[in-house]
Amino acid sequence: MTPSMQNPSIVLYGPGKAKVEDKPIPEITDGHDVIIRIGFVGVCGSDVHFWNHGGIGKHVNPDTGIVMGHEASGTVHSIGPLVTTLTVGDRVALEPGTPCRYCRACKSGSYHLCKYMRFAAAPGPPDTHGTLSKYFKIAEDFAYKIPEWMSLEEAVLVEPTSVAVHAVKLADVKPGEVVVVMGSGTIGLLVAAVAKAFGAGRIALVDILDRKLQFAKGFLECDTFKSDIAADAQGNASKLLSDLGLEGVDAVIEASGAASSVDMGIHVLRSGGKYVQTGMGRPRIEFPIGMMAEKELSVKGCFRYNAGDYELAVDLLSRKKIDVKQLISSTSPFEETTAAWEKTKNGEGIKNLIRGVED
Amino acid sequence: MTPSMQNPSIVLYGPGKAKVEDKPIPEITDGHDVIIRIGFVGVCGSDVHFWNHGGIGKHVNPDTGIVMGHEASGTVHSIGPLVTTLTVGDRVALEPGTPCRYCRACKSGSYHLCKYMRFAAAPGPPDTHGTLSKYFKIAEDFAYKIPEWMSLEEAVLVEPTSVAVHAVKLADVKPGEVVVVMGSGTIGLLVAAVAKAFGAGRIALVDILDRKLQFAKGFLECDTFKSDIAADAQGNASKLLSDLGLEGVDAVIEASGAASSVDMGIHVLRSGGKYVQTGMGRPRIEFPIGMMAEKELSVKGCFRYNAGDYELAVDLLSRKKIDVKQLISSTSPFEETTAAWEKTKNGEGIKNLIRGVED
Amino acid sequence: MTPSMQNPSIVLYGPGKAKVEDKPIPEITDGHDVIIRIGFVGVCGSDVHFWNHGGIGKHVNPDTGIVMGHEASGTVHSIGPLVTTLTVGDRVALEPGTPCRYCRACKSGSYHLCKYMRFAAAPGPPDTHGTLSKYFKIAEDFAYKIPEWMSLEEAVLVEPTSVAVHAVKLADVKPGEVVVVMGSGTIGLLVAAVAKAFGAGRIALVDILDRKLQFAKGFLECDTFKSDIAADAQGNASKLLSDLGLEGVDAVIEASGAASSVDMGIHVLRSGGKYVQTGMGRPRIEFPIGMMAEKELSVKGCFRYNAGDYELAVDLLSRKKIDVKQLISSTSPFEETTAAWEKTKNGEGIKNLIRGVED
Amino acid sequence: MTPSMQNPSIVLYGPGKAKVEDKPIPEITDGHDVIIRIGFVGVCGSDVHFWNHGGIGKHVNPDTGIVMGHEASGTVHSIGPLVTTLTVGDRVALEPGTPCRYCRACKSGSYHLCKYMRFAAAPGPPDTHGTLSKYFKIAEDFAYKIPEWMSLEEAVLVEPTSVAVHAVKLADVKPGEVVVVMGSGTIGLLVAAVAKAFGAGRIALVDILDRKLQFAKGFLECDTFKSDIAADAQGNASKLLSDLGLEGVDAVIEASGAASSVDMGIHVLRSGGKYVQTGMGRPRIEFPIGMMAEKELSVKGCFRYNAGDYELAVDLLSRKKIDVKQLISSTSPFEETTAAWEKTKNGEGIKNLIRGVED
Repeated sequence: MTPSMQNPSIVLYGPGKAKVEDKPIPEITDGHDVIIRIGFVGVCGSDVHFWNHGGIGKHVNPDTGIVMGHEASGTVHSIGPLVTTLTVGDRVALEPGTPCRYCRACKSGSYHLCKYMRFAAAPGPPDTHGTLSKYFKIAEDFAYKIPEWMSLEEAVLVEPTSVAVHAVKLADVKPGEVVVVMGSGTIGLLVAAVAKAFGAGRIALVDILDRKLQFAKGFLECDTFKSDIAADAQGNASKLLSDLGLEGVDAVIEASGAASSVDMGIHVLRSGGKYVQTGMGRPRIEFPIGMMAEKELSVKGCFRYNAGDYELAVDLLSRKKIDVKQLISSTSPFEETTAAWEKTKNGEGIKNLIRGVED
Repeated sequence: MTPSMQNPSIVLYGPGKAKVEDKPIPEITDGHDVIIRIGFVGVCGSDVHFWNHGGIGKHVNPDTGIVMGHEASGTVHSIGPLVTTLTVGDRVALEPGTPCRYCRACKSGSYHLCKYMRFAAAPGPPDTHGTLSKYFKIAEDFAYKIPEWMSLEEAVLVEPTSVAVHAVKLADVKPGEVVVVMGSGTIGLLVAAVAKAFGAGRIALVDILDRKLQFAKGFLECDTFKSDIAADAQGNASKLLSDLGLEGVDAVIEASGAASSVDMGIHVLRSGGKYVQTGMGRPRIEFPIGMMAEKELSVKGCFRYNAGDYELAVDLLSRKKIDVKQLISSTSPFEETTAAWEKTKNGEGIKNLIRGVED
Repeated sequence: MTPSMQNPSIVLYGPGKAKVEDKPIPEITDGHDVIIRIGFVGVCGSDVHFWNHGGIGKHVNPDTGIVMGHEASGTVHSIGPLVTTLTVGDRVALEPGTPCRYCRACKSGSYHLCKYMRFAAAPGPPDTHGTLSKYFKIAEDFAYKIPEWMSLEEAVLVEPTSVAVHAVKLADVKPGEVVVVMGSGTIGLLVAAVAKAFGAGRIALVDILDRKLQFAKGFLECDTFKSDIAADAQGNASKLLSDLGLEGVDAVIEASGAASSVDMGIHVLRSGGKYVQTGMGRPRIEFPIGMMAEKELSVKGCFRYNAGDYELAVDLLSRKKIDVKQLISSTSPFEETTAAWEKTKNGEGIKNLIRGVED
Repeated sequence: MTPSMQNPSIVLYGPGKAKVEDKPIPEITDGHDVIIRIGFVGVCGSDVHFWNHGGIGKHVNPDTGIVMGHEASGTVHSIGPLVTTLTVGDRVALEPGTPCRYCRACKSGSYHLCKYMRFAAAPGPPDTHGTLSKYFKIAEDFAYKIPEWMSLEEAVLVEPTSVAVHAVKLADVKPGEVVVVMGSGTIGLLVAAVAKAFGAGRIALVDILDRKLQFAKGFLECDTFKSDIAADAQGNASKLLSDLGLEGVDAVIEASGAASSVDMGIHVLRSGGKYVQTGMGRPRIEFPIGMMAEKELSVKGCFRYNAGDYELAVDLLSRKKIDVKQLISSTSPFEETTAAWEKTKNGEGIKNLIRGVED
């Protein structure tokens, strides 16, 4: 990164290949566009997957590369002529995907399923560049103002909180219900906290690592359960239910992606229970479909976030229902982005941040 | 069966072991009880499974045996003192399970998930005897009056129609939607017919047997698709979607239980699509969970029938929205029950009936 | 109208004041715009209200006037550079309102409630001109292709059919349910027909005019009830329920706007029944709120149409579930628009059409 | 009340006519029956209405009278042979209505709408006696165990909390939403507290009395608004929205029954907003139906409580989400029941209790 760069950006060209590169400063082309001066960018598991494998499903073009980053916050740098909801200087959390606004999914309230979605740091064609740049362009309605007291570091956490909000909505968690969350990583912790904000009566977090469960205990009021990797799903489920003193729980949100965790999740549900899959693991697993039928479970896939999810995430953080500061483990300078990815790859910390380009 | 028998019944003692046996005539013990003179009993796949294996999950006690049969129609023979909705002589279709009426499931509108459910021909303890008797006791609200013109033979088909109604409700099929039904057996055909009554815009039935698809063509207006057993789920799904000229369908109801059929069903759905599992096959299968997550599918188990399902099934038959007569393949005398089971076991016909004990 | 006019349009300046006037041909300004050569325009009650009173709520500016018309069909005359779903020459039904696509309502699946909606023939500021022009501009996703066999006259009826679709969806009409429709005008008839397509088991149309009920009998299979204007709501409701042999009906859709009709509608519902108000009458009426509470009714307002309503309306007409040709009573030349309004004002016919400008 | 009485009971014979009278101790007739030794009974507005008018809708038979009381707690005195969920000595809150368990409403999850419901202190025929007795019979599933630390006084408040739970469920209050509660009496306060437990982001209580609003401020974190009885609904609504800095709120729950309050409630809602009527006032009022239609509101009646409501009310009190002790204003001896009614009639206190018969 040289001082002369206009819009320094982190470009990935393939597994383990990334560099800082200058890109043009984005221009306002639609009246609702705003240009954001990026404040902080979070590292998420998918970034590590890109760093390791050069993509997920689709891979980056090794010739053109792609600008990485999709969890981000920043400050409004300039605005288009039709913008009414933001002004220069506003501090915002960014929702990093722009739907087409014209298709059936967009118009019927499921823009997250828009097949023309341009999501940050997604290989194309066409490539859609990410937020690891000095400047980033977005439509005004995908930049959400944060309260004055909230730091731009915390604002990065609006993204994973929105993932959690989306999952808890899909699980239709109702006041008083008992919810089991499989996996006590960033998403699992936030799912648990959001479920509590939805009124869940009791929440149990399940993981295979003691330290993750211990962190959970400090993060929110919950039960924890260390699953035994030597036991089968039936065994672990029986043990958990026995600990809880229940015959079955109302909802399970899976946030680890592990096949054994999916299996255990289905086993702990009561008849008529609700299951949501947020974790991403192997695309095909052995699944207890007979039990799903007999207990007449509702099992849902969960993809990113949709209308209202960011608003509610910002609202929950604003009302201090969730203290995301606790989840921030480190902040690396922009030039050391790959080191931040390595930290997350090595399981260091919970949420590692990258500071935007400094003046 | 001897003329002196009071209540001749078909009792199964284990795989391949069944005999006609006298049982006491049931007595009215609750004011809402009615005693039914059984008219006809249908043979379903689960009967064959009992005949082959002596049970499903739980097995019959080889010492005490169990009276078989759960799809049934008949005539009201006597009524308890509190009965207000039926009178002696009424012709009825029977819903063969009695819930407890006191638990959370019963009171919140999901009595089919009542864990105290006593379902006909279910091994215990306590054993719950089935409908293959001369007389059968049931609560008045689980015996549904049929129109005068409807035969008792047709009334037997109210049971599988209710299975179909339950599945189509779970799939939340809406007018104009495109529905794919996996499996063109009795349940698949009825699911397709019920989906049409719910306003489905287009229905495709999938099977591996030409004759089943040909029958479907005569039974209702639909597309049919013969899946290629040599191809994988992806291949069959692409071919079906290409035939339909669609990128994905709104709903899939699986009514075969085959693992390959589940897999194909998930593949043909559009993003946000709905899947219901009515077919029972292997309890654990390989499942494309990654695709479920990415397309944010709703996948539901489906268990028997619930409040309102029988009413709607009777209503659809009464309004001649479904002509179930076409599905009746044979009628065997009571004494030849095991021969009727063998017919179904051998894939002969669609729905084989057993005539109740004649005077 | 002179031959030299580029874009002859019917402009209303106030009650009873309208004239043919030239307007500029609209230009494509957004890539998704299409220009439509208008085929036919329908007359609806609100047009008559404008003709009588110069507006509804808001009134037209007597200096600038407003181009009238909102039920329309036509042919694609030219398309913007980003249009992918239409080509020149396509025959379409028009959804005459364009939402902002950016607000909470738009993004969460309720664009019909967008407060920035620009609806055809709505006084402003800013004024939004209507479809009674030779050329009309619309976004591609609000112009719906019709089948080859369907006439442009029939396509006009997609608009009121969409109103009916929206109402029936709000009423959540389920297969087998008994539905009462208050008012047997265009909307009432279409509501009844749509309810049937949703699987309603029995439909009763209520009106005070014999000829309207007689027409209904020919239009669809239904019960009819002539309400007695001398009787009160209680009396009329009791009589209707007695005729139907029911204690209460599942759903009522009010399509007359008369206060007495609202009252009767609430009275005929069963406990837990559903009521939808599509008819527009006096803004404040005497309402049986105590009965609403005791029967725990769900009462909904109904405003225009939303995502999916036009698609389903086109689909129902395409699958010939509703024969709207029967509803077309007259077709007037463009120059005689005010005469067509007068016809509707005088209660002549059901749906009176105006032919677009001829070459 | 004399020491020799077996089951002293408060019997109302007409307006202002009540006396203590002996009644037979109820006997267990159904296996699921339990006999409760009544601990405390609450006074509610409907009791006062009975005390003033001799009934609501139906009036008590002046010859036979009716035992009053329906908000109650107590201790299990004896149990029927089939009871499994309670034992003698258990301390319970009572749900004072028993549905038939056989009708469509009961089986489909709406037992509160059962037309055969026998509700405590409801004039018949047949009369159903209330809880103001030493002993009261109830089915086991309508007596809810309370935690050890909870007093029987607090347990009485489970009844109005269940009313509030039912209303908030009907309003479908979602996390982050803004809720306005019309009326700051017992029900209004509890509705507000329950809405908070459902995650409401902001709650405003509206009343015409300063002291009620002041109490509200101490009871929960909320905005308050004193409506101006000289202003119209439009004026009060504008003022409230201006205070809140909003254009419209997500949900209104009306808990006063006043016509002006209903009107104002409709006015403060945003397009697509939700309204629930729990307050009972005049059966017919002037209602802004035009606004309901234009804003496409959902307006619901609200009747008592249904499956799950008592469970959740007990759960919320058990988890100390609501401190109902603050609402208890006085406790009168059983013999002074009419004095307690008078207190409530005169607007003294919030919830006045009557102590059960002492040994």
